[in-house]
Amino acid sequence: MSDAAPSPTAGAPSGLARLLAPCSVAVVGASNDPTRIGGRPIAYMHRQGYKGTILPVNPNRAEVQGLHAFPSVAALPEVPDIAIVAVPAAAAVQAVEELAARGTAAAIVFSAGFAEMDATGAAAQQRMLAAARGHGMRLLGPNSLGLFNTRNGFYATFSASFETGWPIPGRIGIASQSGAYGTHLFSVARGRRLGISSCVMTGNEADVTIGHAIRSMVEDPDTDVIAAYAEGIKEADSLLAALGAARGARKPVVLMKVGRSALGSAAARSHTASIAGDDAVIDAVLGEFGVVRARSTEEMLDVAHLATRRVYPARNTLGVLTVSGGAGVLISDAAEELGLPMPEMPQDAQARLRELVPFAAPRNPVDCTAQVLNDPSLVGHFAEAAVQNGGYASVLAFFTQTGGAPSFAPKLREQLRATRAKHPDRLYVLSVVASPEQVQDYERDGFAVFEDPTRAVAAIHAMGRFGEAFARRPGLPPPAVPAVALPDATPSEAEAKRLLSAAGIACAPERTCATAEEAAAAAEALGHPVVLKILSPDILHKSEMGGVLLDVRGADGVRAGFATLLDRARRHAPDARIEGVLVAKQLKGGVECILGVNRDPVFGPVTMFGLGGVFVEVLKDVVLRRCPFGEDVAETMIRSIRGAPLLLGARGRPPADIPALARMLARLSVFAHQAGPRLASIDLNPVFALPRGEGAFAADAVIEVGG
Amino acid sequence: MSDAAPSPTAGAPSGLARLLAPCSVAVVGASNDPTRIGGRPIAYMHRQGYKGTILPVNPNRAEVQGLHAFPSVAALPEVPDIAIVAVPAAAAVQAVEELAARGTAAAIVFSAGFAEMDATGAAAQQRMLAAARGHGMRLLGPNSLGLFNTRNGFYATFSASFETGWPIPGRIGIASQSGAYGTHLFSVARGRRLGISSCVMTGNEADVTIGHAIRSMVEDPDTDVIAAYAEGIKEADSLLAALGAARGARKPVVLMKVGRSALGSAAARSHTASIAGDDAVIDAVLGEFGVVRARSTEEMLDVAHLATRRVYPARNTLGVLTVSGGAGVLISDAAEELGLPMPEMPQDAQARLRELVPFAAPRNPVDCTAQVLNDPSLVGHFAEAAVQNGGYASVLAFFTQTGGAPSFAPKLREQLRATRAKHPDRLYVLSVVASPEQVQDYERDGFAVFEDPTRAVAAIHAMGRFGEAFARRPGLPPPAVPAVALPDATPSEAEAKRLLSAAGIACAPERTCATAEEAAAAAEALGHPVVLKILSPDILHKSEMGGVLLDVRGADGVRAGFATLLDRARRHAPDARIEGVLVAKQLKGGVECILGVNRDPVFGPVTMFGLGGVFVEVLKDVVLRRCPFGEDVAETMIRSIRGAPLLLGARGRPPADIPALARMLARLSVFAHQAGPRLASIDLNPVFALPRGEGAFAADAVIEVGG
Repeated sequence: MSDAAPSPTAGAPSGLARLLAPCSVAVVGASNDPTRIGGRPIAYMHRQGYKGTILPVNPNRAEVQGLHAFPSVAALPEVPDIAIVAVPAAAAVQAVEELAARGTAAAIVFSAGFAEMDATGAAAQQRMLAAARGHGMRLLGPNSLGLFNTRNGFYATFSASFETGWPIPGRIGIASQSGAYGTHLFSVARGRRLGISSCVMTGNEADVTIGHAIRSMVEDPDTDVIAAYAEGIKEADSLLAALGAARGARKPVVLMKVGRSALGSAAARSHTASIAGDDAVIDAVLGEFGVVRARSTEEMLDVAHLATRRVYPARNTLGVLTVSGGAGVLISDAAEELGLPMPEMPQDAQARLRELVPFAAPRNPVDCTAQVLNDPSLVGHFAEAAVQNGGYASVLAFFTQTGGAPSFAPKLREQLRATRAKHPDRLYVLSVVASPEQVQDYERDGFAVFEDPTRAVAAIHAMGRFGEAFARRPGLPPPAVPAVALPDATPSEAEAKRLLSAAGIACAPERTCATAEEAAAAAEALGHPVVLKILSPDILHKSEMGGVLLDVRGADGVRAGFATLLDRARRHAPDARIEGVLVAKQLKGGVECILGVNRDPVFGPVTMFGLGGVFVEVLKDVVLRRCPFGEDVAETMIRSIRGAPLLLGARGRPPADIPALARMLARLSVFAHQAGPRLASIDLNPVFALPRGEGAFAADAVIEVGG
Repeated sequence: MSDAAPSPTAGAPSGLARLLAPCSVAVVGASNDPTRIGGRPIAYMHRQGYKGTILPVNPNRAEVQGLHAFPSVAALPEVPDIAIVAVPAAAAVQAVEELAARGTAAAIVFSAGFAEMDATGAAAQQRMLAAARGHGMRLLGPNSLGLFNTRNGFYATFSASFETGWPIPGRIGIASQSGAYGTHLFSVARGRRLGISSCVMTGNEADVTIGHAIRSMVEDPDTDVIAAYAEGIKEADSLLAALGAARGARKPVVLMKVGRSALGSAAARSHTASIAGDDAVIDAVLGEFGVVRARSTEEMLDVAHLATRRVYPARNTLGVLTVSGGAGVLISDAAEELGLPMPEMPQDAQARLRELVPFAAPRNPVDCTAQVLNDPSLVGHFAEAAVQNGGYASVLAFFTQTGGAPSFAPKLREQLRATRAKHPDRLYVLSVVASPEQVQDYERDGFAVFEDPTRAVAAIHAMGRFGEAFARRPGLPPPAVPAVALPDATPSEAEAKRLLSAAGIACAPERTCATAEEAAAAAEALGHPVVLKILSPDILHKSEMGGVLLDVRGADGVRAGFATLLDRARRHAPDARIEGVLVAKQLKGGVECILGVNRDPVFGPVTMFGLGGVFVEVLKDVVLRRCPFGEDVAETMIRSIRGAPLLLGARGRPPADIPALARMLARLSVFAHQAGPRLASIDLNPVFALPRGEGAFAADAVIEVGG
């Protein structure tokens, strides 16, 4: 959890149900012209059969679009459940104040000219929010394109996009920060005949955030799947609560967060802990909750579409039925690339199928060949074998244009229906080139249709990711770590290591020495060779000023090194407070890792793990996770990086002590979580992961304490 | 060039023009039933208005589908230009023999039961091929679904896919090894209203290969773009000739080669040189010719579709015009990920646009905001600024559903047409949600329409890759390297290094020593520390048996090491011929690289470059290229790997001597090319790339010589 001030409604149910289904709605700035911003919602609600009371507010007209109009909010004959505010910014603040005072439950503010414009606008937005909160009124916007609910015809939006058609009612909820993109999304969905339950566009998010919008859809019994679009997450708690609730309710969330390229710039920063760009943190948060992150509108709707089948395999496997060997290979390529397993069919089942069609290749992909065109019953035999004997959680049937051919499609449909009827628990996807009407028939039978098999594989893979997250049992609790009080300012390396050691984070054996003789004695005690490091709270990046000497041997070597370091420190930073020299045992033979913590302004402390050297510096091969977490999560993180084979014993190397590393990572996350907002960052670099059983030790540690 | 026996037509024009446009066609096995394999082509040609003479051959009927039929090939009243063979395998061989003897130019053999079945079938196929070649007749198939040409109605195919519609004539040629996948491709293309010039499906490729088919489309003046599908390349020369001709003619080739996942298994092999799997070699060959490799049918047709605009920017840049800031970011993410530059608009142009729309964000993406809905002339101003002032080679305009709204679309169209008329040389892509009719209007205006902006970006990026390849000037010739005669069998390390040194490939200074005293003296001369290695033609993998000692110092150390190595060799391989011990200067301070050559069965020797250690072993970060090539290509290869920053001086490291490394790589490629087919592989591992000016040296070398 972030330790930023929580929003008043975090954790609690969203309280937004009324926003989507009010009994009455006032329209402040109502227009008689159905093409104007204040006229459109009324026209849309009329057209779409909204049954509640519409109360137009317009000082200049007694009637608006056939409805009795009222001159002011004060003049309304009843307190509206909710209100649409479609007047210029200055008037909008006043309208919200009046609506809130009268006890309206929520306002949808179309008006622009607030925080998205300038500081004056931001101040006005703040006043509007204060007025609403003062009376417990919720606020969608300002600068929001509004929302709509296809089930009750409540179209509280001024989107001009309905001239070519209306959204089709269905079970996908859309939550978007952007009105333009939200409109794009539901327009494309309509073209694909995907049904929408409701769509909420949050605009400036003065109050209602994308998290609240998602939460309201989790609570909506008519929404099965949530498609969300975000440009930036400004507040963590409502999003975390929503994603937790979605997982608990087994409602998949597919989210597009634009601005991935920010990662590029973040990664370019020199400090290793800064590799955690905001976008990478969001990625980590989404992964935590099993949210699938879409990279294109198309992918987003592919995933949402398939998710409406509500089959989310906890252990996904793919069986492929195909009439083209080539397409089978194409599908296998895509599945392997995503890590979606395609286990082989049992040998006896393969033999049976080969008896039916001698030249069939029934391994999986199960190629039943064009022979099915002559004998459609073969489809049933092959499909039954794949589902019953193969036991696949997901089945992708590639029938290309034959699935759209009038001479064959009805027979295919009959065969597939029979198989599905016997095994309704599987996820069935059909890749055919067919007319929209034929596609609808297949969809009605329970088959999701994707013309492109590669896209089908990606969507099937996503269903497994949802299923995995839904099935995940609560993991280990974060380890109990003694609370450690941070010092007032950034501590020296030795002090940092003392703090970490107190939290059970193992550091390389070392001693702080004030004189060359002490250093020589310490080296003797620790065992040669040793590392010498200048010790000063004022010198953070020691190696850059030559403040670290490696591989120092012999008493004379240690004495000479001591003198060298003091001399360099004096020349580099004449005013630095020198606390002496750290003499540490030089660790060897392990794998160098980097563990770090960085404070994300929205999500709080985030732990980073990566391998030292080129992996972090050149390849940016790191994994992030919000603090705190347990050792099981830590181990999963460690195993997830691309360089993990190095730790697991690639090419005859001894496997590293991963349990010790996981223990350190989990403890670090608890340490950072408990340290509070003054902790700016932690950098353990390098950490030596020694061979299994020998532990993991931080050889250097920097803790940055902020103001 | 491969040194496998070249096909008789490699390099020469394909000679296949007649296959696609014959004046007469015999159909051996002609059927009166238009739904049977021997009946379909006749029915299709009738239906599609083929103007040539159709000569049915059927021993049992005097008339077939209204045409006079002949009882045998011998009975044909004239020599047909080409023939379709649609009889069972045994009869097919005889038919081909007779057709060839009569002087038919080419045969299209539908019949299956040949090499795809078993060894007997393969022998029959060989006989059929011999009969054809004996009379200079070309052969498409056997086991081919045939071909069609939309311009003359020549449908020499038994595809059953036309009941839902016919391919639309156009300028995309389709070449596919698979009939099922070829059918899928032209069926999807038809659904997308993409026009096809011809489609050739090569089947078993006894004679006509996918390369020949591509070549015929390069020569076809009515084909602008070639979409090809391959499952495996069995013959290099015809493909290389076709791709060279395509590049020369500025005709883009987009190719899907399935079986990428084979790379995974190849990469798992332990020998580094084996990392070059067949699929990775094909990838390298395609890159060489600027072929874009598609990973899905959809991507393939996206690229082919946009390529029909025939704008291939040599230096691609993207300007984005958008009505949604979010979509602008989404597009920027996609462009950055692909490496497609989106330079900023000039400041003065930005200022002018901000005068027009104060809240516009004209940096690029150029967000003209929903304000354009009120004033469509703004589209023209913003588009003109992007094209004229921004100077972008490619322009992507995102207008989502507004581009399909009857109230706005005609105005948008007018504005965009005017801009394009002034600057017809740019690549224009429109991302709109619109009806098929509206899309056709935009397409007629010269705008390629993609509903999904992410897919649009990928296709635009591909146009730049074509443009780059088309604009590429001939590079440096491969360096002149003295020809070196390979020994009869795999040489020892010292001998291998002598061969390489003779070719100008620098190896670490070293001496071969027969006695411990010689070794001590050699170490003295080379300078300590040294590396000692057992020297035996019978021990290839020295380090695995402890046959390499690093960091050996002092005369006594060298003597002891010498004894250790001889002892280990005797115990490990009692029968190995021991030639002594190699004493080499131990190189330090450089970047460890791996250079290798592996022999691809189709494309001949292929050079590999990668960084040592984890980069090759864990990350498979290698680049491949057919031998031979010049130093410019070598340098491009070196700079292309993910780990390249390590060589270029990441994090304060000195930059490595890349010219020396490039010289070594180019020379290695010439060495391998000249060595002939007996060279099985070369492995230089490690090669030390020292700091710039200090050279690059192979510290170990293995040359494997085959039978």
